Amino acid sequence: MSTDRPLLVTMGDAAGIGPEIVVRAFERGALAGALVLGDAAVLRRAGAPMIAQLDTPADLHAVPPGCLPLLQPAGLPPGLAELPWGRVDARAGAAAARCIEEAVRRVRAGEAAAVVTAPIHKEALAAAGVPFPGHTEMLQHLARGADGTLPDVRMMLANDELRVVLVTIHLALRRAIEALSFDAVLATLRIAERALRGMLGRKSRIAVAGLNPHAGEGGLFGDEELRIIGPAVQAAAAEGIDAQGPFAPDTVFMRARRGAFDVVVAMTHDHGLIPVKYLGVERGVNVTLGLPFVRTSPDHGTAFDIAGQGRADPASLLAALEAARQLAARGV
Amino acid sequence: MSTDRPLLVTMGDAAGIGPEIVVRAFERGALAGALVLGDAAVLRRAGAPMIAQLDTPADLHAVPPGCLPLLQPAGLPPGLAELPWGRVDARAGAAAARCIEEAVRRVRAGEAAAVVTAPIHKEALAAAGVPFPGHTEMLQHLARGADGTLPDVRMMLANDELRVVLVTIHLALRRAIEALSFDAVLATLRIAERALRGMLGRKSRIAVAGLNPHAGEGGLFGDEELRIIGPAVQAAAAEGIDAQGPFAPDTVFMRARRGAFDVVVAMTHDHGLIPVKYLGVERGVNVTLGLPFVRTSPDHGTAFDIAGQGRADPASLLAALEAARQLAARGV
Repeated sequence: MSTDRPLLVTMGDAAGIGPEIVVRAFERGALAGALVLGDAAVLRRAGAPMIAQLDTPADLHAVPPGCLPLLQPAGLPPGLAELPWGRVDARAGAAAARCIEEAVRRVRAGEAAAVVTAPIHKEALAAAGVPFPGHTEMLQHLARGADGTLPDVRMMLANDELRVVLVTIHLALRRAIEALSFDAVLATLRIAERALRGMLGRKSRIAVAGLNPHAGEGGLFGDEELRIIGPAVQAAAAEGIDAQGPFAPDTVFMRARRGAFDVVVAMTHDHGLIPVKYLGVERGVNVTLGLPFVRTSPDHGTAFDIAGQGRADPASLLAALEAARQLAARGV
Repeated sequence: MSTDRPLLVTMGDAAGIGPEIVVRAFERGALAGALVLGDAAVLRRAGAPMIAQLDTPADLHAVPPGCLPLLQPAGLPPGLAELPWGRVDARAGAAAARCIEEAVRRVRAGEAAAVVTAPIHKEALAAAGVPFPGHTEMLQHLARGADGTLPDVRMMLANDELRVVLVTIHLALRRAIEALSFDAVLATLRIAERALRGMLGRKSRIAVAGLNPHAGEGGLFGDEELRIIGPAVQAAAAEGIDAQGPFAPDTVFMRARRGAFDVVVAMTHDHGLIPVKYLGVERGVNVTLGLPFVRTSPDHGTAFDIAGQGRADPASLLAALEAARQLAARGV
């Protein structure tokens, strides 16, 4: 992919901090080569200066300096800028989904290099009847093939010290355990190796975290390591992937942070995200691996508790924008 | 409890790093006022200088300078010092258990102020027929009342930045979820508040982490927060405990690290231990709350991969010794 083509930035949930951090990023010059998909009134409420409304990303070059470039998708619900801050609302969920749909349509049509998404609220999506628990699942659906085949995607979270790729994400923990399989773990290892090789320019050193305390302690505390995870690691190694484990979840992230591994594959959402976020979400970037386009996002949510107060920190969005530029440039 | 009485330090698994870190701690002067429960030959193999064998902790004052004070429990298996390093062995498991039993007997008899345990290996314990998955469960059993009642104990892990108390510990994750109950969460909150009040000298600010991604996101990803954890937090608050939550597991530890809470109560072993260990196990201390005596231990395991190589770092044991002294002095 060429980096001449613009980045598309979705505004996220209109009642959360998404619009604010997008405007803050614009003010800091971090939206160079990017345009926003969102609602003009919502962005004005978030402090946007002059807004230049575009019909197509190709018109980005014609936007005057100091204007925030916006492509407002057709069909956004009215009254978004009057929604109370920090409250779940079906209209905000519907608008967030509409922006994401439009971003994917444009990037798949070759009009953009990558998609960067501001935070959405899953309850607002649900209230709008959008049947996806999060961005990752929605993007997977929007990226399905002509025959309806879904790409096998995984969530990667990364900061300066640690990268994790998750086998399962937005499932009740009970269901995440049921969803673990040899195929799911092996597919994750393949996706992680493919993505990391693109980023690092070499084979990556992959650690696999177990599911159970002490990685099952030889079967004493659970057998998923023996039945599922260990065999998948061995199968990946047989394909030439440098995967090791399963390791005890409570120490493998520390070891990766110290440089023993390039990435840790974690079985559950929180095994992976607790360490990535521990030193501060403002440093993290979320990357969806396995899509036919580059997609990154900040490492935090809608922060309803501080939305609209001018306190939101755009640092993670800035990191997501930078990561999207780099990944697009490397053709990952 | 008086700090005049000695600390008891168990040697741990003879094939792991336990004996080495005990000897290193002795060399650094950190065993002042402490004696070791272990095997003389094992400690010699780990580099101990002269060993002074005691019959009772009360004789500690008579140990000549430069001698490592040892109380060797009766009934240790022979040949422990010939075991290969870093291998599971039933004899090492049996010896480790024997030292723990003797330590508990002595501390419950009032002969010592606290117990500090070096790492054991759960597979070695199991091979020796010791029916406990870890120290915490074994200590709970050894501390049972005259009528057989088990004390309700919880594991706390702490370092300079974060304290966590665990509702469940050495269970397969699947079984840990089944073991969660209103009573278990409420009991944990009571135990945590009692212990932290002793340590801090004031009411503690307790955060409760959820079980599911995003703490269930309002029921979309699991209902344990709504059915079990939330009601237990409310019941604790009604008793005057400053408990809040359940919060999303992936960000609550970061918030506690930044000072928003004094302690996080976590539902599972790895939700709690991943963040405590992320910055390095050499800084952490394990404290068993709810026992009728003080017990601390290092935050790491037997490290079979480096046992016997002179590479083991005693820092976490030193922290455990210091914590035991402080807790005993405060009568926690």
